[in-house]
Amino acid sequence: MIRADLEALDAADPLAPFRDLFTLPEGVIYLDGNSLGALPRGTGPRVAEVIAQEWGNGLIRSWNDAGWIEMSARVAHKIARVIGASPGTVAVGDSTSVNLFKLLAAALKMRPGRHVIVSERTNFPTDLYVAEGLAALLAQGHELRLVDADAIHAALQPDVAVLMLTHVNYRTGAMHDMPAVTRAAHEAGALMLWDLAHSTGAVPLDLAGADPDFAVGCGYKYLNGGPGAPAFLHVAERLHATARYPITGWLGHADPFAFEPAYRAAPGIAGAVVGTPSILAMAALEVGVDIVLQAPMPDVYAKSQRQTEIFAALVAEQCPDMGFALVTPPDAATRGSQVSFTHQNAYAIMQALIARGVIGDFRAPDILRFGFTPLYIGFAELWDAVRILRDVMQSGEWNTERFRTRQKVT
Amino acid sequence: MIRADLEALDAADPLAPFRDLFTLPEGVIYLDGNSLGALPRGTGPRVAEVIAQEWGNGLIRSWNDAGWIEMSARVAHKIARVIGASPGTVAVGDSTSVNLFKLLAAALKMRPGRHVIVSERTNFPTDLYVAEGLAALLAQGHELRLVDADAIHAALQPDVAVLMLTHVNYRTGAMHDMPAVTRAAHEAGALMLWDLAHSTGAVPLDLAGADPDFAVGCGYKYLNGGPGAPAFLHVAERLHATARYPITGWLGHADPFAFEPAYRAAPGIAGAVVGTPSILAMAALEVGVDIVLQAPMPDVYAKSQRQTEIFAALVAEQCPDMGFALVTPPDAATRGSQVSFTHQNAYAIMQALIARGVIGDFRAPDILRFGFTPLYIGFAELWDAVRILRDVMQSGEWNTERFRTRQKVT
Repeated sequence: MIRADLEALDAADPLAPFRDLFTLPEGVIYLDGNSLGALPRGTGPRVAEVIAQEWGNGLIRSWNDAGWIEMSARVAHKIARVIGASPGTVAVGDSTSVNLFKLLAAALKMRPGRHVIVSERTNFPTDLYVAEGLAALLAQGHELRLVDADAIHAALQPDVAVLMLTHVNYRTGAMHDMPAVTRAAHEAGALMLWDLAHSTGAVPLDLAGADPDFAVGCGYKYLNGGPGAPAFLHVAERLHATARYPITGWLGHADPFAFEPAYRAAPGIAGAVVGTPSILAMAALEVGVDIVLQAPMPDVYAKSQRQTEIFAALVAEQCPDMGFALVTPPDAATRGSQVSFTHQNAYAIMQALIARGVIGDFRAPDILRFGFTPLYIGFAELWDAVRILRDVMQSGEWNTERFRTRQKVT
Repeated sequence: MIRADLEALDAADPLAPFRDLFTLPEGVIYLDGNSLGALPRGTGPRVAEVIAQEWGNGLIRSWNDAGWIEMSARVAHKIARVIGASPGTVAVGDSTSVNLFKLLAAALKMRPGRHVIVSERTNFPTDLYVAEGLAALLAQGHELRLVDADAIHAALQPDVAVLMLTHVNYRTGAMHDMPAVTRAAHEAGALMLWDLAHSTGAVPLDLAGADPDFAVGCGYKYLNGGPGAPAFLHVAERLHATARYPITGWLGHADPFAFEPAYRAAPGIAGAVVGTPSILAMAALEVGVDIVLQAPMPDVYAKSQRQTEIFAALVAEQCPDMGFALVTPPDAATRGSQVSFTHQNAYAIMQALIARGVIGDFRAPDILRFGFTPLYIGFAELWDAVRILRDVMQSGEWNTERFRTRQKVT
């Protein structure tokens, strides 16, 4: 492969114009949109408008006049389209962790005779922590049973209430077969809860087709909603009438402004809403979601698969015998939009890369993770990134005190 | 009273310069800062900087380089000063409802032999809903016992686990004696949880002195943090080692970036943190909090008491025999920074007032609520607001279809 091959791919890329919808700093190759999505050009002006006009001038009137009261539901409706869910099955607000807590609690209530939550040992820790915390709170003998990916089917025993998995693994990028796993869970009488943090906006999702019971997802990765953007949740429509969410805040009430002393859940997905969402954060998220909706998902996914394939091939070609071991599945159909390698000096190498403007991230204990966001990453950049990786290795510049010293966040 | 008396008060007001720190629209008298605080002038530029520089240019690096990872703790530290709490006892993030859930669940775990949560019948509904939802989740026979304000002491029976009250009532403005009520709860062996939504930034608070176990509060009222700003929580230091929060997210872990499979709570108040907060919303909140910290609280409270007193007197004087009945305590020492009246046509009258630029709010079923935010409301405005109220009543302009028709939010 030579750089010109990649330049040709850029020239033919139908998604190339999307890059202009984002601002990216000079001298940076940003392979970390799966940790924090890049800034859409429209976000600053939109948030400035919300602040100056809607909050500053409209003040409290903007709940009606600027439609703040409907904003969350509108953004939720858009996210439902991104994940292929039926209208009215998504709510936006709170963090992914809080949403997971709400749905997991609702799920356990629906399977009173079953006391096991099955998940993957390598799932994102917050998912495991939330399950652990909920089990401790309920004190009804619930157990979080952690298994390896290849043991999930075998773990679906009659005592399993919920199978809770992340669709795309945050470290390896391995992607589950959502329809097949969901079917297996249902056949075992368990409920299925997916964490879509590393899928939403990156791979095609068909929640309506796969028909899981519950899902949660993140607004600040491939949806480009900004640091700590509101998260979302999905509940299948067939469960709306019976689901009982544990945190019953006033905005999930059937008539919030009646200020009734007793809780009456709003019908449909609205009953999963809790408190007042940040309107600034919600407005920023909407800008990001709107961009994702403009991009044809088949094009996004085709480019993602091609980029991950090319990046892995380039590292194999340019950096042989340097200690990088691919941990992402080699088959593009079974991975998300990322490529990860283990390396014994992963931390220092990633710091050295970042110092050179190639931003990926390190995931403990020994993973270099590179994310590919087809809306704003070009093909030639992959070439440049791998050449810099080669330089960093050949020069030994990663092997300094500066890069070996751990920072708070990596 | 004549307008000149009030102009004289404005001329002598030590807080008058604070108004320039806010932007308020022309032609509006904003008596609703207790619902949504006004926009600080510094918020737009600060959020624009966070978006363009920190997110846009810094990208993921800003968690370290721009200090995002410490931002919540820094804002929490500032809010602790606002409420007179010890350093390290406040965390910021999530909504008030979610924070209430977390603390109430922690409290019930600490009183396993007791099954009653006592609260006021007229407490803000979300507080009651959250308690109700938690009791249903736990399914351990917990009961929410609602009483009138004058029956709180009598309700502190040996089966009471938690006394959960809002310091300043959202409808009437009545303010509890925090030290005395807290003492009574403790003497009865109950834990004390205060909702400071209508107190924080408006009345002097001394959490360290009153020493309640738990408190929650709101960022978008007197802290001027913007619509849906992050909320906060407080836990007394003596409980940090034993409190078990029910929602255990990765940012509350002792070492979030170690990505350990099992939860280990961060020491101190940090263990009450759950997921990633919105950095845009947090930055906006900090601007509001910084202003409140600049204003001497004794001055703020003195002006608040004077404004509520004058406003109530002006309505009595200018609008006699028009059907307004004061429901706020007449003694300024036992009310927050608001004045409320019942009126059989409260809804339509408030809509007519808002159409004239006097913004207060309606609270079901029949309350007109006026909030006084001493940092940006002047004395002469009170005169003007009451004259407009008189006009609206005398002209009968409130009595039209337009104003009688209910909107979604009021």
